[in-house]
Amino acid sequence: MLKKFTITKPSINILPALKKEIDTKTKPPGSLGKLEDIAMQIGLIQETITPKLKRPTIVVFAGDHGLAKEGISPYPQEVTHQMVTNFLRGGAAINAFCSANNLELKVVDAGVNYDFEGAENLIHAKIGFGTKNILKEPAMSKEECEKAMEHGASIVNQIFEHGCNCIGFGEMGIGNTGVSALLISKLLSLPLENCVGKGTGANEDQLLKKKEILKKASSIHPTTDSFSILQTYGGFEIAMIVGALLQAAENKMVILIDGFIVTTALLFAKSFSREVTNYCIYSHLSGERAHEMILGNVGGKPLLNLGMRLGEGTGAAICYPIVAASVKFLNDMASFDEAGVTSK
Amino acid sequence: MLKKFTITKPSINILPALKKEIDTKTKPPGSLGKLEDIAMQIGLIQETITPKLKRPTIVVFAGDHGLAKEGISPYPQEVTHQMVTNFLRGGAAINAFCSANNLELKVVDAGVNYDFEGAENLIHAKIGFGTKNILKEPAMSKEECEKAMEHGASIVNQIFEHGCNCIGFGEMGIGNTGVSALLISKLLSLPLENCVGKGTGANEDQLLKKKEILKKASSIHPTTDSFSILQTYGGFEIAMIVGALLQAAENKMVILIDGFIVTTALLFAKSFSREVTNYCIYSHLSGERAHEMILGNVGGKPLLNLGMRLGEGTGAAICYPIVAASVKFLNDMASFDEAGVTSK
Repeated sequence: MLKKFTITKPSINILPALKKEIDTKTKPPGSLGKLEDIAMQIGLIQETITPKLKRPTIVVFAGDHGLAKEGISPYPQEVTHQMVTNFLRGGAAINAFCSANNLELKVVDAGVNYDFEGAENLIHAKIGFGTKNILKEPAMSKEECEKAMEHGASIVNQIFEHGCNCIGFGEMGIGNTGVSALLISKLLSLPLENCVGKGTGANEDQLLKKKEILKKASSIHPTTDSFSILQTYGGFEIAMIVGALLQAAENKMVILIDGFIVTTALLFAKSFSREVTNYCIYSHLSGERAHEMILGNVGGKPLLNLGMRLGEGTGAAICYPIVAASVKFLNDMASFDEAGVTSK
Repeated sequence: MLKKFTITKPSINILPALKKEIDTKTKPPGSLGKLEDIAMQIGLIQETITPKLKRPTIVVFAGDHGLAKEGISPYPQEVTHQMVTNFLRGGAAINAFCSANNLELKVVDAGVNYDFEGAENLIHAKIGFGTKNILKEPAMSKEECEKAMEHGASIVNQIFEHGCNCIGFGEMGIGNTGVSALLISKLLSLPLENCVGKGTGANEDQLLKKKEILKKASSIHPTTDSFSILQTYGGFEIAMIVGALLQAAENKMVILIDGFIVTTALLFAKSFSREVTNYCIYSHLSGERAHEMILGNVGGKPLLNLGMRLGEGTGAAICYPIVAASVKFLNDMASFDEAGVTSK
């Protein structure tokens, strides 16, 4: 039985002190734009006018999808495990960006269709060798979906206990953009057509095929609530991120939301506990078509719009320095009084 | 007599090799969006598929404006020298951001109305104690304007000789948003009305007064070419940035363009040598009203839109990690072949 997450809305007791601190820094009020909003949000989360970001970490959850075998991605399923190996060897985009921005990187086997036995530096949390093919049966059993969420929560707790208070999630799983389209279509009762995009780069023919397959899968299974939608369509890595998001919010960690798939996971997390979004910073607007729409659903205003559509947590990693700079100005800048600068 | 800058367009010899390098990295082609464009641009500038950013530096030029005494800013003129002191003590936003992003920071007295004699860590390049009041006479003499441009170029050369190949410019000068509005109105033959904004935060009454003063100043002086416009309206810090931009481009340095005022300086630099823009990366869209318009004039597409409108080079400093990450992925990521990942 899945644990109940206790996520509280941050207290606003410290809001007036934070506002004063931000407004009396040696700059015209409001002139740091969204950086001031981030400083305020993190101050509220940590209930202090001197917040700190500690051991910022990106966790990439990898999982395979039975549906990938139907050819909904231009890439074959084996790319998931090949990319996990690439992460472990340091050759992927997320490695480059974590290294550039001094972020710790953890890679999780949430359920890749490959035996990583003995692989070092990998967090082994495999639920199965890929989800089931949803053209035939539900992606996960109830128990598998719960276990995936629990693993996500437990991994976040381990990282939290090592001193991390700022976390971003990424994903790798051939087919998971399509699966996410199905998930949000069901969860938000939206036409599937509006939710499907090109993923990692499908051409027009591939996109048509993808839509057909997803439409077929969409019509087969009865679903009732958000949990049953998640269980039915998958995947392991997405369910694990849902649990991870909920646990991170329960721990009052600052959460960097990546792109389309992580935002999809957030929609599910929010369906379980609506206060989760108080802890979220939206890193970027993905090039994936439906991302803007679902960001609207959680009220998320992304910091960056760089045309990125890679996944892996790369948007979260790229956005981190802006978040760090927001905390830095709050801690480091002198006030008008301290600096002897005449204010307006 | 001002030196002639020799700014060449980067060779495109290496373009095919760069394109191949970027496209064969383990990611869907194009999926890193604008980061791929930056990697390409810097590769072309440095003529290599393994570009490096060395000793990235922000240089803040400070100068006073005679016009400030007419009250075109909500802040009094003394704030310029107070903020320079704040920079030197490490208490300003640009200090926090340079520290956060490991950027070197240099502060230049281009012509502040204050005696900084003996001040350490300040680059002393004072042309005068503020420009003249343009309601009465031209801001600078021809010689002063040339000297300011020369100093800007010479300061960049000193920094370049110490191993820096990536530079951003910032400014501090009460009244310089208004002066920049005049400058672009004259240079681009645009109605002044379209060029004036709220600067550091003028209210509606202050904005009306600012427009009146600027309009009056605009009608007094005959100007002929871009140099005479720059000389007539000033200021010292803007002219110095014009020279700095030209020298940085001549040196084939990567140039991070900050906000409204630095983009104004770039318009003048471009009027002297049109190839300067090849070396420019546009860091952010400022909250200052006319910035988007003048960015269009140089074909600049800003990376960030965070509602910042502070100056000091803060936009350039905040954007730097994205530029560094672009170079990092080009150097660090494995190709599909190297990583043994199946491509499309």
